[in-house]
Amino acid sequence: MSRYLTPTLAGLSPYTPGEQPQDQQYIKLNTNESPYPPSPAVVAAVNAAEVEKLRLYSDPACAQLLAAAAEYHGLSPDEIMPGNGSDENLFFALRAFCDEQHPLAYADVTYGCYSVWCNLMHIPSHILPLEADFSIDPTKYYGLNETIVIANPNAPTGLALPRSAIEGILKSNPDNVVIVDEAYVDFGGESCVPLIHQYDNLLVVQTFSKSRQLAGARLGLAMGNAALIADLNRVKFSLNPYNINRLTLKAGEAALKDTAYFDATRQKIMDTRAWTAKELANRGFSLTDSRSNFLFARTDRMEGGALYRALKEKGILVRHFDSPRIADYLRITIGTQAQMEALIKALDEILEG
Amino acid sequence: MSRYLTPTLAGLSPYTPGEQPQDQQYIKLNTNESPYPPSPAVVAAVNAAEVEKLRLYSDPACAQLLAAAAEYHGLSPDEIMPGNGSDENLFFALRAFCDEQHPLAYADVTYGCYSVWCNLMHIPSHILPLEADFSIDPTKYYGLNETIVIANPNAPTGLALPRSAIEGILKSNPDNVVIVDEAYVDFGGESCVPLIHQYDNLLVVQTFSKSRQLAGARLGLAMGNAALIADLNRVKFSLNPYNINRLTLKAGEAALKDTAYFDATRQKIMDTRAWTAKELANRGFSLTDSRSNFLFARTDRMEGGALYRALKEKGILVRHFDSPRIADYLRITIGTQAQMEALIKALDEILEG
Repeated sequence: MSRYLTPTLAGLSPYTPGEQPQDQQYIKLNTNESPYPPSPAVVAAVNAAEVEKLRLYSDPACAQLLAAAAEYHGLSPDEIMPGNGSDENLFFALRAFCDEQHPLAYADVTYGCYSVWCNLMHIPSHILPLEADFSIDPTKYYGLNETIVIANPNAPTGLALPRSAIEGILKSNPDNVVIVDEAYVDFGGESCVPLIHQYDNLLVVQTFSKSRQLAGARLGLAMGNAALIADLNRVKFSLNPYNINRLTLKAGEAALKDTAYFDATRQKIMDTRAWTAKELANRGFSLTDSRSNFLFARTDRMEGGALYRALKEKGILVRHFDSPRIADYLRITIGTQAQMEALIKALDEILEG
Repeated sequence: MSRYLTPTLAGLSPYTPGEQPQDQQYIKLNTNESPYPPSPAVVAAVNAAEVEKLRLYSDPACAQLLAAAAEYHGLSPDEIMPGNGSDENLFFALRAFCDEQHPLAYADVTYGCYSVWCNLMHIPSHILPLEADFSIDPTKYYGLNETIVIANPNAPTGLALPRSAIEGILKSNPDNVVIVDEAYVDFGGESCVPLIHQYDNLLVVQTFSKSRQLAGARLGLAMGNAALIADLNRVKFSLNPYNINRLTLKAGEAALKDTAYFDATRQKIMDTRAWTAKELANRGFSLTDSRSNFLFARTDRMEGGALYRALKEKGILVRHFDSPRIADYLRITIGTQAQMEALIKALDEILEG
């Protein structure tokens, strides 16, 4: 830290991304990327003619992407705001709806960035512990009178709440925004997008990183009633008006339009997830009922950190979190069928070796 | 504004980007883009194989881009941080080095985002008026004991300070960071990058949007001693660790390596600027001595807003600012020689018609 850093940032604990080895030698099951390439329509859309147009700024209004997103989600374009990854959407939302006097409520075991953003912006955190089985009891969020963020499905547990449970939280907190982070919803969760026209306090955030194979393009969408989206745009146009680059706008638009590819690839991942879960259960692993593109699993036969390291030695990267409640668990991204077979083989060698 | 917006943001005045018509019917001389496409090496680097890799997250450390930037600028990689456009670099810097008790000093006529960011983050603004001829008197920045940002060359005036003038400001403010925004430096300004190893309070910010033809890719660099850059990374990893997408990283790296194309295109723009300035002067326009890829010009024969509108009717977009000190002026981006000839012809028709 330099001697010039503002004292108000001295206590920052930045987010630690999953390992991103640049040498490609690992089977990478640690950061919830898709094992499949983007739609061929995306590859066609991001062509040399578009690269030549990079001399021009991107459209700060993102009109063409918004038109495609509105069509897909049954919303109007002014009910959607794109972000430079859903992380940016979530950051904008916390900036808009919380401050030093207005806390954010979220689970103790959930996406790690919520606490990091609260720390950065001096937003008080109201931490609600998950139940013993890692489920969320929605009634604990009733009448909180605070801005709320719920990852649904949750990370890294993979557990999902039904839409009706979120609806209860929305109804009982009419004066506060409830942010539903649906990063993983396309793998078997129930989206709250259909509730947007009923609840003016609902903000849904989705990402193109998982189910649309565009982690490296950095694109997310925040969706809610037009007044909430206008608030987010106030923040965006006060911070970085040209927040999305031209090629990502093109890629996102093409990905949204290729619904057949989207549906086929997420089904493949759900099928591979079912196969992998069964194989792990057969070997005595405990698993949550994941509705995401990862499994959350533990075994009595080896501690989580040790198993993570043993897999890494065999060329397979998974994610292990140090925090006490989940230190026994591994979060394992669903890869291709062949990658998951390699994982099972490696686990057998480690646990029976 | 929704009823949920935090009261601390109620007074926000977001930045107004230059018009970005999406229909391509205008000669676009209003947002300081390059009239030339990116280097052929950029087009080659952003190919279908790279688009397929978008399924993977980008490298949060941006190692390959940093290696190329370090090589070009004669720095080490830990003295550089890339941003999602230089706007993000500048935002990170203000977040790191200012707060509600630590103001930012800047000119009354300069890049409009400085005041917007101060407003967003409740940083007090210390506004220092330019001299009557729009020049900056560096001695007015001596011993301010405040974080300082200077656009050099300045926008929208185009006027540049010599490196020695910035050095005086650095020496007289040893306990505060001096941010030099060099968005336009490659068109005849004197960069302060060579001072980085002498002054630990110097932060230089550059962009790929103007001289490297990548406005639509969104890429900037902040450069300074390693401790300052570590501060910026604390903010980045607390806000958006994957802030740069994969294709922009590839494009930026290729652009940095093609120094011949970079030098040839910026020289063409400087040559076209000289031709255009002479033609305007011949018609009685007053011009600043612009060291940027735009001219800042006025004529007694028509008020700035009226001339802007008349040019727009003829299919030529330039930038006009409403603020009183510069309302008589137009900021005219340097396009191709043919575009500037069309501009001169249109001006003749308007002013002699």
